[in-house]
Formats: sequence, C-alpha cells, structure tokens
Amino acid sequence: MSDWRTALFNPRRVAVVGASATPGKAGALFLSNLASAESGFAGDVIGIHPSATELLGRPTFPRLDAAPSPVDLAIIVTPAATLPSVIEDCGRASIPVAVVISGGFAETGAEGALLQQKAIEAARTHSVRLVGPNCFGVINAHCGLNASLSIGLPRKGGISLVTQSGAYGMAAYSRSIDEGMGFSKIVALGNKADVDEADIIAYLGSDPETRVIALLLESFRDGRRLFETIAAITSSKPVVALKTGRNPSAQRAAASHTAALSSDSVVAEAALRQAGAHVVDDGFSLLEVAASLARQPPLRGRRIGIITNSGGVGVELTDLLESQGLAVPELSPELQQKIAQTLPPHGSPANPVDVTTDWARFPQMYGAAVEALMRSDEVDAVVPVLLQRSALMPEVGDAVAVALRKSRDAGSQKPLHICWVAPRVADANRARLLEAGIPCHLWPAGTASALAATSARAADARPNTVAASSAAPALCDADGWAPTPQAFSLLAQAGFPIEPLVCVSSAEEAAAAAEHMGFPVVLKAERPGLVHKSDQGAVRLGLADRDSVARAFTDFSHRLGPGPALLQRQAKPGLELVIGGRRDPSFGPIVLAGLGGVWIEAFNDIGVRLAPIDIDEAVRMVEKLKGRRLFEGFRGAPPIDILMFARLLADVSQWFAAASWLDELDINPLIASGDGFEIVDVRMRIRNAEGDPHA
Amino acid sequence: MSDWRTALFNPRRVAVVGASATPGKAGALFLSNLASAESGFAGDVIGIHPSATELLGRPTFPRLDAAPSPVDLAIIVTPAATLPSVIEDCGRASIPVAVVISGGFAETGAEGALLQQKAIEAARTHSVRLVGPNCFGVINAHCGLNASLSIGLPRKGGISLVTQSGAYGMAAYSRSIDEGMGFSKIVALGNKADVDEADIIAYLGSDPETRVIALLLESFRDGRRLFETIAAITSSKPVVALKTGRNPSAQRAAASHTAALSSDSVVAEAALRQAGAHVVDDGFSLLEVAASLARQPPLRGRRIGIITNSGGVGVELTDLLESQGLAVPELSPELQQKIAQTLPPHGSPANPVDVTTDWARFPQMYGAAVEALMRSDEVDAVVPVLLQRSALMPEVGDAVAVALRKSRDAGSQKPLHICWVAPRVADANRARLLEAGIPCHLWPAGTASALAATSARAADARPNTVAASSAAPALCDADGWAPTPQAFSLLAQAGFPIEPLVCVSSAEEAAAAAEHMGFPVVLKAERPGLVHKSDQGAVRLGLADRDSVARAFTDFSHRLGPGPALLQRQAKPGLELVIGGRRDPSFGPIVLAGLGGVWIEAFNDIGVRLAPIDIDEAVRMVEKLKGRRLFEGFRGAPPIDILMFARLLADVSQWFAAASWLDELDINPLIASGDGFEIVDVRMRIRNAEGDPHA
Repeated sequence: MSDWRTALFNPRRVAVVGASATPGKAGALFLSNLASAESGFAGDVIGIHPSATELLGRPTFPRLDAAPSPVDLAIIVTPAATLPSVIEDCGRASIPVAVVISGGFAETGAEGALLQQKAIEAARTHSVRLVGPNCFGVINAHCGLNASLSIGLPRKGGISLVTQSGAYGMAAYSRSIDEGMGFSKIVALGNKADVDEADIIAYLGSDPETRVIALLLESFRDGRRLFETIAAITSSKPVVALKTGRNPSAQRAAASHTAALSSDSVVAEAALRQAGAHVVDDGFSLLEVAASLARQPPLRGRRIGIITNSGGVGVELTDLLESQGLAVPELSPELQQKIAQTLPPHGSPANPVDVTTDWARFPQMYGAAVEALMRSDEVDAVVPVLLQRSALMPEVGDAVAVALRKSRDAGSQKPLHICWVAPRVADANRARLLEAGIPCHLWPAGTASALAATSARAADARPNTVAASSAAPALCDADGWAPTPQAFSLLAQAGFPIEPLVCVSSAEEAAAAAEHMGFPVVLKAERPGLVHKSDQGAVRLGLADRDSVARAFTDFSHRLGPGPALLQRQAKPGLELVIGGRRDPSFGPIVLAGLGGVWIEAFNDIGVRLAPIDIDEAVRMVEKLKGRRLFEGFRGAPPIDILMFARLLADVSQWFAAASWLDELDINPLIASGDGFEIVDVRMRIRNAEGDPHA
Repeated sequence: MSDWRTALFNPRRVAVVGASATPGKAGALFLSNLASAESGFAGDVIGIHPSATELLGRPTFPRLDAAPSPVDLAIIVTPAATLPSVIEDCGRASIPVAVVISGGFAETGAEGALLQQKAIEAARTHSVRLVGPNCFGVINAHCGLNASLSIGLPRKGGISLVTQSGAYGMAAYSRSIDEGMGFSKIVALGNKADVDEADIIAYLGSDPETRVIALLLESFRDGRRLFETIAAITSSKPVVALKTGRNPSAQRAAASHTAALSSDSVVAEAALRQAGAHVVDDGFSLLEVAASLARQPPLRGRRIGIITNSGGVGVELTDLLESQGLAVPELSPELQQKIAQTLPPHGSPANPVDVTTDWARFPQMYGAAVEALMRSDEVDAVVPVLLQRSALMPEVGDAVAVALRKSRDAGSQKPLHICWVAPRVADANRARLLEAGIPCHLWPAGTASALAATSARAADARPNTVAASSAAPALCDADGWAPTPQAFSLLAQAGFPIEPLVCVSSAEEAAAAAEHMGFPVVLKAERPGLVHKSDQGAVRLGLADRDSVARAFTDFSHRLGPGPALLQRQAKPGLELVIGGRRDPSFGPIVLAGLGGVWIEAFNDIGVRLAPIDIDEAVRMVEKLKGRRLFEGFRGAPPIDILMFARLLADVSQWFAAASWLDELDINPLIASGDGFEIVDVRMRIRNAEGDPHA
C-alpha cells in the first residue's frame, strides 16, 4: 500500500496481535469491534495468538509472518515488554503501520521509557510507523473501521478528531448517538512516540471525507511543524482546536518579561490562532463547534439577527452575543416593515424579532422572518430562539428548515443556528433539526459561545525572514546574557531606533560624558548578573547636572561594588511599549508586543505570535491590545502612528527569526511618542555553543 | 388574611376573573391549572363570568362581590380596558391581592400606560396589591398552587424564583422535570406596576420553605431598596441573581469618567454582589447554581479535589477550575498514601486522583477517594468525574452517594459536585444522583463555572454615613458643574488631601503666584463649559519659570478667550488613581475607584460599590483591581499603602453619601506615592433645586 496513512485508515486486512476470546480482555474487545456486523467493515480481520487457529470466528495465526499477506494494519494489545519484538515481526511481514494500545511505556517512568525507545528503534529499522503506545486506537466511520476501545462506531459524517485523550474518542461516539454528530476519522495518539498530530492532520487536510478537523492536544512534539501543517489547511477546511494543560504552576521561573509572559500554553494557543484554527476552551465546545462548522458555513461578520418568542430571552441572548464581541443591530425600516407584515400588533420587528406568544402563527412567523433575514444584507447570521412552545411544535422547526433551504437555493451563504430552550420531551423535534443540518445549541449561553467560535478564520500570510546582518556577540555571562552595550550596538547595526548609550568607568568620566550628551540623563549600573536593575536601585533617572551624575556613579560603586555604568539621555515622555522575542523549544521563534514599563506585569496586555510576522499581522496584534486607545494620544500628546509601530514590530520579528544565535530578546521599554520610537533598554540572551538554549 | 403575601402564595380561595371553558383561552387554562388534580391544590377555585354558573366543574359567579368570602387571590385575565373596574371589584370584595396576567398596558405604549396608571390608582384606593400586569402568574409547589401559564407544576423543593421573564417560569417547570430541580414559590412580575421584586424577596427571605432565592431581573424600580432587602438575607440564605439587558448602546453619553464607567448594568451587578448575591451571567447558570446551592453547601475556599477515570479530562477540568480562580492543589504525602491504597499501580493519588481504567474496581476506588477527600482538611470541595464507563455503572454513583452520606454523618460540611460526561443512555444513573442531592454538571466547562459560582457570599457590613460638613456651592454652570476652586475648597473643608490651588486672572499675577509657590507648576484654563481640558490644550504641565507661566496664560487667552486660570504645584510623580461618586436614580449614591489618568479609559480597571462603604470593603475593592500590583512599588519607588488608600476611599464614600446636594464627584487624578496622596483635580456636579439630577 502506497502510504502508511491509507493503510491506517483504509486497511485491506487488520491483524489483532494479542487476540483473545475471553470477554473483558482487550484482545477480545478489538476482535469483536473490528468484526462487528453493525460496523460493516469490509476488510479482513485476523487474530494473532500463540496457539489458537480461530478466535471469535476469525482466522488466527501464531505469528504475523504466518498470516496471509498483505496485512495493512496491526493492532497491538500484548504486554509492553513484547513490543520491540512484535514491531520486528511487523517489519518482517511488511506491515506499514501498527497501532499500539498497550500501556506501560514512557507514561509510567524510566523503565517504560526505555522500552518505548527500543520499540521506536525497531520501528525505524523495519520501516514500520507506530501510533501510540498507550492509546485508544483508530476509527474510520466511512469504511466501518472500529479499531478502538469505543463501544460502538459513531455515525458517518464530516468531523475528523485527533485527540491526545482517549476519553474524547469515547465522547465522540456518545455525541454521535445523542447529538447526531457525524464523524469521519478518529485517532488517539497516546504517547506520540512516532506518529504525531502533524502527520495525521496533514493527511486529513486533503482527505475528501473530512470536512472539519477537531484537535484536542495536551503537548506538542514539534510545535513549529504543527503550526505550518495547520496553516496550510485552514483556508480551505476549518480546524477547531483545544489545548489542555495550562497549569500556571508549571510556568518556568523566568528572568525576562518576554519569557514570563510567553508560557507554553500562551505560545501554543497563539500559534493555533495564528495558523487559522478556531481555538476553544473546553472539550464540550470542541465537539459542538466542530459539528456546527460541519453543518453550517462559518460566521463571516459580527451582525446577528434573532427571532424569539420570549422578549426576555431575546434580551439575554443579545447581552451574551455582545459580550462575545458580536452585535445585534436594529434592522432597517424597510426590513422591519417587511417582517412586521407577518407579526401580530404587539410583535417587534426591530431585532430581536419578537413574535410574541401568538403560537398558532409561529410556523408562519418564524419561516417568514428566517427567510427575510437570510436574504437581507443586514445580518451575517440568523438565530431563531425555539423556546418551550415554539420548540414543542414540530411545525415551527420544520418551517425554519424549509426557510433555510429556500434561502440557500436563493444563494444565501450565511449560517443559521438555533437557540434551544425546551424540556426533554421535545428532543425528537430537536433531532429533526440536527438531521436537517441545523445546529441546536442549548440555552442562550451555549448559543452565544458556539456561534462566536465559528467566526471565519484563516492563516495569515507568512513573510520571509530577512538575513540577520550580525553575528552573535563574543561575550556573554554564565546565563547567556550579552553585555548591554553589545546588545544596543547589534540593534543599531540592524537599523532599529536605539537611544544611544555611552559606557563610563569613573564618576569623572560619567559627569563629562553627561555634559557632552546634554541633561537630563539616565545612569544605569552594569554588573554581571544584575538583572532587575530598577528593583535593585541600579537605575537613576532624570539626573540634571554634572554633580548628580558623579554622585550617582559613586553611589553605585558603594552599593553594588566597583564596575562601569551606562549613560543615556533621558528619553522624552511617551508611551512605554515592549517588543520581545524568544525561541520556544517546540514552536521556534516567537515575538511578543504590548504595553511595557511598569504596566506589563500589572495588565499582561501583550500579544504573542510565531515569528516572523508581516506588517498586517503586526497591525492586528496592536489592534487587539486592551491599551490600544493609548495610541490615540493622551495628555494632549499627538497620537502614535500604529502603522509605524507595526512596521517596527514586523521588522524586529523578521530580524529575530533570522538571528538563530539569539535565544531571547527583551526590548523594554521602547518609548513611543508623536515623534517616533526610541529603544531605551534591551536585553539579549545568546544560545550556547551547542545551539541549545540556556535555562 | 393578615398579609397580602400569604394570600398570594397560600390562598384559601382563588377566583379566576375572565374564567372560560373554551380550550386555548387563558380563562380556561388558569381554571384547569388551578383545579388540576395532579397539582393537588386544597383551596377553593371559583370562576367569575358574566353569565355562567359553572365552568370546568367549578362554581362560577357573575361578579367578585357575589362570590363566597373570603377570596384571598384574584387572577385577572380579562381585556386590559376592564382592569380598573375589576380592581375596584376586588376592593369591594376585600381581596388583598390580584395577579394580572393580561397584557396591553405600559409595555405597548402611551395608551396602555395610562390604563395601567388608572388600575394602580384603583388598587391604591381600594387597598389591593397588584402583581403584573402582563405577567406569567404565580406558583407555590408546596401547596399545589399553579396560578400561572405553566403547563404543569414543578416538583416541590427549596428554590424560589422571582423572574421578570415568563419564559423562565416555564423553564423552571422543564428543569424540574428533566433535572429533578425542586421549587417552592415562582412569581413573574411582568410590568411591576405595584408589587416589585423587593416586596417578594423580603417575604421569601423569611419563608421556611425557601432555601435558595433565584432572581432574573431586567430593570429595577427601586435599586436601593432591592439592595437593602437582599443584603438582609444573604447571611442566612443564598440569593442567586442574573441581571439581563446590559445593552452597551443604552449607556448614556457622559461628561465624566465616573458616569461613563458606572453604567446601569455595572451598578446593578456591583450592588447585587455587594449585597452578597451569587451573580451569574445567563439563565441556564441561574437555575443550575440555585439548584446546586439547594443541594449542597456553598464552597468555602478555593481548593478542589478531583477524582477521575480519565487523565485527560482531569487536566482539562483543572485548567477550567483554575481559570475560574480555583485551585487543584497537590495532596499531602500522607493523604496520597492513604488514597493510593485502593488504586492500581499506575493510578495517581496526587490530585486529580486518577483511578485509571480499571473499571471493575471503580465503585471501591471512587468511594474510598471521596471519603478520604471529604474528611481531609486539604480541599474545600470534592469533584468526582463520572465519565463514560464510570457513569454507565450505577454502582459507581451509588458508592459516591454512600461515601458522601458517611462523610456528612462524620461532620464534613464541604460540597460535592459531579462532573458528568456520558451518553444519554446513562441518564437514569444521573437522575439517581440528583435525587440523592448531588449536582451533576455537564462536562468540565459546566462543572467549573457552576462550582465557582457557588462560592460562599454574604453582604458586607454597612457603615453609617457621616454628616457632610459643607453645603452645596452657591454657583454652578448650566450643566450643574461647580467652579473648580469651590470644589477644591469643599474637599479641603472635609479634610481630604488636596493639592492647593490658586486662581489667577492675568499673566503677571500667574507668574508672581507661581514664583511664590515654587516651580515647576501646572496652569489650567478655567472657562465655563470647558470639560475635557487636556484634549483642548487647556492644561500646561511642568512650567519651570516665570516666563513660561506668563506665556501659557497668554496663550490660553488667545486660544480659549479671556478668563482666569488655576495654578498648582506640579505633583510629584506617582500612581494616578481615581475616586468617583454618582447618585444613581435607582440605586442612590455609588462610589468607584481604580486606576486614573490616561489608564482609566484604556483598561477600565475600576471597582464600583453602593456608598457608603467601610474600610474593609474598600480594601477588597482595591485588592480586586487588575492594577493592584502597581501599589507594590515600581521604578524603585516605595510601595503605596493600600490601607491608607482604602481609608481615604471609605471616607470619601461616606462623605459623598451624606452630601445629598452632590450629584457627581470625579477625583481624577489622585496621585499616590510612598509619601501619601494628593488630589490633583476634582469635578463636582450639583443637583438642581428640585433635587433631581441634571443629565
């Protein structure tokens, strides 16, 4: 078979290694799941067992190389210790891929990790790809393949799920049964010893049976590759993603703001967003949003039209949509007039359209309002609220479904989602709507969050990196930090707007240089290992004459021991910003930007992206800052040019991405004013000789 | 009957005015709802109809005063125009309270409002209290009273619901059937023409059948009274509240930050919180949290213990709890050892406690872990995750319920909530748990938000107001703004730390006064109607000599026309804060505090409370600011004393609350440094002669 992924998802013959007929044993569960008549898998299923020749009605062989060829897929449930030799057997039988269900590997400690390593070596040697170990298995609903722990096969559909948690493999089946969600492929990656998420996602990206990709990921083996893989897909196929394991206590102690503010989870979520994924916060939403995008187009705008039979619930839904950044605009007089024609006198056509409690006319009113809104250019999505009575009447849902179909025929491409508030006795009506491809979210809160999460996404264009025009500084301290003058000089060479700096080594030299420079000045003590200068009294601002400068230098020597100091003109007042860069072990170079100075820690108002970024993405980063309004000018100062800042940010990101010798960059503060930008302080941490980051 | 509320909720005889036997008519629905054998209402139910003597088996009379006495409650479904005369009939028949279901009043426009006004006048004249009009009705599940549009009576229990939206009256019934939620009283207030939420809440506060009060409110007739009513209850009974109708477009255009940042919704939610209510964001959560608090004690701490059969879901739930401000701490070695005794080798006792997939031992493991956690002092709540297999096995839920019961018997008072992730086929198991008083929230997201919302609340102690030592300034402009010097002088008289101010009326006077004061100084133009001084170039900071001061004065005269200017010493650098006060038409005096200067608009980092507040509440306000860290000192400056700031804030709130002539107070900025506080600018808006606020 040409590709191991084809073998994985559409195998002609599957072997269960460790097959059994004993109920409760994994070997029996997998045999019967694969052979289940209900699933309808058309391929061959065979067992591998030391002595049996038939198990649960399936031909069984003592070893893989004794089985008829070809075997495309091996499912391995034998004890951990056997895995290296079973993989060798797979190789000898030319089996391209094995799914290892068994646990007892890296997840259990050092001994298990060693075993896992041995298995991987065997897999590499014998050209076998390995999914797992310690995983839930694999499902392809379209060909009836249930090579998993799932108690049944989910119904066929367009969602493919890649999950690090087996529980969500099971949940997919539950949701499929209870919510009519349709699935294509499901694969749980367990320890990801060989095959990782990017391998699978790339395949799903071009799989015609997959309309939406849902990802539940806890860790990333190669974040950068995952990012590139997802970014290549999202313009043509939605990807919904949940990153779990935010654990703030795991955030490493960091010497720079850049490192402290770009924890693993922050970087991972930023990367998923930047790649164009719909990022959600929890697993329920993951499946709900994926199913919505399989059923309806993404939301391409902010304006939502609501139709409701309860004024109060219309108000609540409006609140919740607005708190998600969406809007419920008043309709034009013309459209209101059109909708009002079918409403009773006390109804409201404004938006929310309130059809009142005149239930006898519900089907007609809901149908007409849906069509009017779907065909108007005044809203970007339509949300009928089906509440109690309107939900209990099947004719109302049918009228909505018919109106949707007619609107689609007339070319309307906007999404329709129902807000469902009804007792369980109305579930059959809800099932009909789901069957008709209409998402029915529970209650206003569920509706608002799911609809907002379907907002159209696509990956950003990626610029090329520019060659860094400079090599690593020769000197750095034990932690890798370069001396400040070198860091300034590197930024100056790269053409960035630094506030010039003079290094002085005596009080007299300091005073003379300050006079030459022009007052007021800033003096900073420079000592190896002195990192948080402000906190340690190693920065003196606003020194206005020779004497003050000389005294400040002497004071540093007394308090901090002898050493040089750095002298700068005091920057003009302005907005303190920060630009940072860091090489993440998994995601590679990242860039961050936001409010700097004292505000950075208090408000954590920063954006993070994988570097490099272009100017458009830099503008979007700035526009999303909470402190964006501060760019508009304050205290009578002229506004700060956002486009100029974005250009600087994009340039820094490109320079940093190319400077592979640089592990961490912390420009803080960068002072912005109507006149332009000045880099007032910078720190750089150099990668050590082996290319590994310090820390 | 002594009290109209007893008559409303426990009537001996109910009359339906507008009774009918025609299916689909409100008069028939109410007669049959009241007379339903299933509901079991023991009181008399009679009809009022012009000609019939019996309707649906109930004795019927032509007028209320022809009916046997006493009639405690009249339910009115006749057309709007009849209401004033029907109310008069109620009065003549000595009926203490009428519930008006009919619509067509103030909600429909001026004509309806007039009708409503007439009905109210009749009610006042005849001592009849009126619920509605335009409402859903009233329910008391404990005596079987269904005088509402609900198609059935919810099951008996401890939740009483006061709702402005009839839809939630229906939803209560649905949730009662589907989720086993038990209700006591339900009342929908419609237009609140007479009886309002505070009337009802006060009664429910001392109603022994009501264990939890749930409120859904869109508007407030008398916010201050509502606040006082709720605050008197929350130390003994939980109140859960949802305020809908946030509509930001309704936020009035405001000339001061204080007004702009304290929109109606912000004030209402702050007041509900301050009164000790559990404030939720949506209607689903309203009922879910109320039911949780009826079933389990509130959460008295942040530490949550999790027991799970899926490691991945444990990680997700931990993320979500932490994002709600809760914690999932690692257990002590002793407790881990105790729990580990029942776990398989690869299980984890750390927290989340991971019982693995060893399902045969689930009941034993879940039971033992629940008991160990409930009886330890290391967590404040216990959350077993019942997921797929563990949810599908009834023995697991039973073991949890038994362990909970044993822990309660042993004196444990912490709450237990289940996180439920299972297909619908397991619903019977879920129903058993709900029946046992255990909340079963859906999926990790639903669990985290509901559990966090049950955090114990109580109203804050209220200080007395201090008498304002000053009367209103004699002068103010057309909008009510007092001249700046008077405003400063009033604050100085009250003992607040102002930065002194001199009013100068020529360039020469300005220069001389500045020299006397000491440079640098600030000069501000003072002109009637000049509100946003910075934006209009009417403020000059850092003037360092006589000439600069004189030039600045002359420049003001050229650009802004002739007029005086105000001169102040330039304040020392420090943290810019704001303290504001406003008299809300519904809630009365409020106080706000937060970051001031340019930061206020960008970050909206403020707290709002009804005034006056005491120092403890002021400390809590400051502790909740995002910019709280800025008080700890920055740029080498000494920290700012939070307690001193809180004392100032409490004093201002008490002074403002007593200054009934003052409509709006805007102290911005107040500069805080290690040395203390300086009020650098203040604006005051005076109430007009009639005592009505300007605006």
